[in-house]
Amino acid sequence: METSHLSAVAAAEAVRSGEVSAEELVKASLQRIDEVEADVGAWEHLDNELALEQARRADLARSSGRTTGPLNGVPVGIKDIIDTADYPCEYGTVLKQGRRPPEDAFLISRLREAGAIILGKTVTTELAVYAPGKTRNPHNIAHTPGGSSSGSAAAVAAGMVPLSVGTQTNGSVIRPASYCGVFGFKPSFGGISRSGVLSQSKPLDTVGVFARDLEDAALLADVLMVYDSSDRSMRARARPQISKLLATEPPLEPRLAFVRTPVWELADESTKDAFRELIEHSNGRVDIVDMPAEFDDAIDDLRRIMHVDLARSYDRYYQQGKDRLSDKLVEIIESGHSILACEYQDAIEHIEMYNLLLNQTLEDYDAILTPSTPGEAPLADTTGDPSFCSIWSLCGVPALNLPLFQGLNNLPFGAQLVGQRGDDARLFRTARWLLNQL
Amino acid sequence: METSHLSAVAAAEAVRSGEVSAEELVKASLQRIDEVEADVGAWEHLDNELALEQARRADLARSSGRTTGPLNGVPVGIKDIIDTADYPCEYGTVLKQGRRPPEDAFLISRLREAGAIILGKTVTTELAVYAPGKTRNPHNIAHTPGGSSSGSAAAVAAGMVPLSVGTQTNGSVIRPASYCGVFGFKPSFGGISRSGVLSQSKPLDTVGVFARDLEDAALLADVLMVYDSSDRSMRARARPQISKLLATEPPLEPRLAFVRTPVWELADESTKDAFRELIEHSNGRVDIVDMPAEFDDAIDDLRRIMHVDLARSYDRYYQQGKDRLSDKLVEIIESGHSILACEYQDAIEHIEMYNLLLNQTLEDYDAILTPSTPGEAPLADTTGDPSFCSIWSLCGVPALNLPLFQGLNNLPFGAQLVGQRGDDARLFRTARWLLNQL
Repeated sequence: METSHLSAVAAAEAVRSGEVSAEELVKASLQRIDEVEADVGAWEHLDNELALEQARRADLARSSGRTTGPLNGVPVGIKDIIDTADYPCEYGTVLKQGRRPPEDAFLISRLREAGAIILGKTVTTELAVYAPGKTRNPHNIAHTPGGSSSGSAAAVAAGMVPLSVGTQTNGSVIRPASYCGVFGFKPSFGGISRSGVLSQSKPLDTVGVFARDLEDAALLADVLMVYDSSDRSMRARARPQISKLLATEPPLEPRLAFVRTPVWELADESTKDAFRELIEHSNGRVDIVDMPAEFDDAIDDLRRIMHVDLARSYDRYYQQGKDRLSDKLVEIIESGHSILACEYQDAIEHIEMYNLLLNQTLEDYDAILTPSTPGEAPLADTTGDPSFCSIWSLCGVPALNLPLFQGLNNLPFGAQLVGQRGDDARLFRTARWLLNQL
Repeated sequence: METSHLSAVAAAEAVRSGEVSAEELVKASLQRIDEVEADVGAWEHLDNELALEQARRADLARSSGRTTGPLNGVPVGIKDIIDTADYPCEYGTVLKQGRRPPEDAFLISRLREAGAIILGKTVTTELAVYAPGKTRNPHNIAHTPGGSSSGSAAAVAAGMVPLSVGTQTNGSVIRPASYCGVFGFKPSFGGISRSGVLSQSKPLDTVGVFARDLEDAALLADVLMVYDSSDRSMRARARPQISKLLATEPPLEPRLAFVRTPVWELADESTKDAFRELIEHSNGRVDIVDMPAEFDDAIDDLRRIMHVDLARSYDRYYQQGKDRLSDKLVEIIESGHSILACEYQDAIEHIEMYNLLLNQTLEDYDAILTPSTPGEAPLADTTGDPSFCSIWSLCGVPALNLPLFQGLNNLPFGAQLVGQRGDDARLFRTARWLLNQL
């Protein structure tokens, strides 16, 4: 059985049925990494023996008849700002070189419980902000994979792992997913626990996932979206059961609202063309909707919140070794220091107003359709522009990157589907419907 | 039956048994107001006919055999920053002259449900901050009643009503209660709904109550401490049942921690003497405990939060008529405008740290004992110093003023009893125990 390109759903099923072993899956992953890692550079910490040992334990559990989880034997890559007990976690900065977390993050415990193999730690940009790490775009290594979850997106795109975990504060899941041509899912704010994850901005930080197909993203999201009372952004509520809803048909044919957002002028011509064509082929199910003028300030609001929170979260790094931080990060931190409390609090208060306005739009539509990025990946000296993700990050609404398009350089870029806060499962079902139309 | 000095518990019982009517109670209140209001000036809006009409409806309900609430027929005074549908609500500023709220605040609905008579609206300082209104201290009208809940405290102290409602952002319940010689109770943060109440500072604003005895304060608190999902500071949890616990004995003899707080040097000599004597007569149940050095910054933290939030909450008044605001308020608003976001967020984050430290102290003690005010009420050109309330307001812990002492001018002042956040009922039981010792 050819295992290296199995979907996570198929791989988990094959392990469950005994068709392949977890060890074979992990070996296939390691072999694929061996082939392409020198070019792609997706991994920060990877220990073949550690990965194989986990796989053997998973196989032993199955063969001894013990209960196995929904991801039994499936290798997963973890962004190197999420703590695991078995690997270092260095946050993409020399200032944390050699840091070894004492224990697994809450979400890592959920993965282990589900039987997943924590294959290794993937490259993050410096402190999950903008300064690129070593990772390159698997479709063309002169280009960026996007950031900040660079390694997680590239590892999935390059077929090294079927699944990976990243985080988004502004555009760090949707943007690399778009550039790498994979599915990226940023759940509703508070959807996945951030305990044991580097904190950048408490009102914005969101854990998300990467996969090569929609069902895989749903499977991983279902494992991770578990209430953790120690993350104050979470509410105790029933788990969303995304995979279950995804397997059903929408009760009515969905309608989508295509919105240009206030940064439409940043979009490449090929992006504009791609959406024009998509709307033309939508059989009238996609309307062009203008966003209320209030949203013109939303990106500034996000910037204010993020800069202040970065200034506070990373103050110790700034104090300890400002010269070993990137110029861009120093600039952001210093900008954050100068922002007034009234401006910050105004921005925080706007989040609710923006959500009320979005909910009004989403009364008539199942989801918002909009670009994920201005277009395909730029060259590797930046991680690209997150502006098309900012409003949705600020609002904490669920967002999916659908890898639908190709640009002039034959690099992929995505369409972004955005739902109402808390409506994550329905967003997947709407995405499945849209994919079936194409 | 002499009704004007009945406690709320006794008055409600007398109405329930038919011994007196609600109308008689209200008439007694109005008569007492008639006698002393010219001197005290506790009322901003009072309409005898409106009050009597409510009383007649309460009597009709009782006589027709309908269910009556625990405050049936009991007159209550309401601070003029809390909306009621039948009176104006002018926030103590000419800028809101003639404002008529469309509906009752959530807490007013709870009072009406309980059968209480909303007698009228009591004087607040300007926008519930520091600039005095017309109210004078009933014990000596040359002196302040304290603020900002000036009228509510004075009305209860002068025997005009058995109960009243106020609010505290820094010291606005405990301080006027201390100066007026009545019980004042500031519940745990999030204890009473603020929907329909003028918002000064979301992380600090707390509704509280005044009464002439502890059982009355408990009765009113029990009626008001009801979960309201529209006030985000509240959590859905069981009601505290303060009156019920207050009627029981502590399982072990309580121990109190006397803390001087970082503002001890502000205390009058008579205050220092009063506490020295109280501790000497405590049979070893009161220990002198030093607050951790971390608390040295707590008052500055409260000030930062309050100034920023006032600058934002009152920005429209500042824009609309800065010249019609007091100099002191303009100064606070302008100070708030200049505070940095990092400073504000640091202060907010410290709240949790302070509470952890307090909880450590309160592991060994049932409550903290500390002054409510530096001493007795100063002259009426200020509302006095709130510093002895600041830490407890910042931490959102429950606090009670116990009217225990008299100063050199024969004016009352109080001892403040402070509990762990959420432990409101136990704080009352500890207070009852302390009062029984004296």
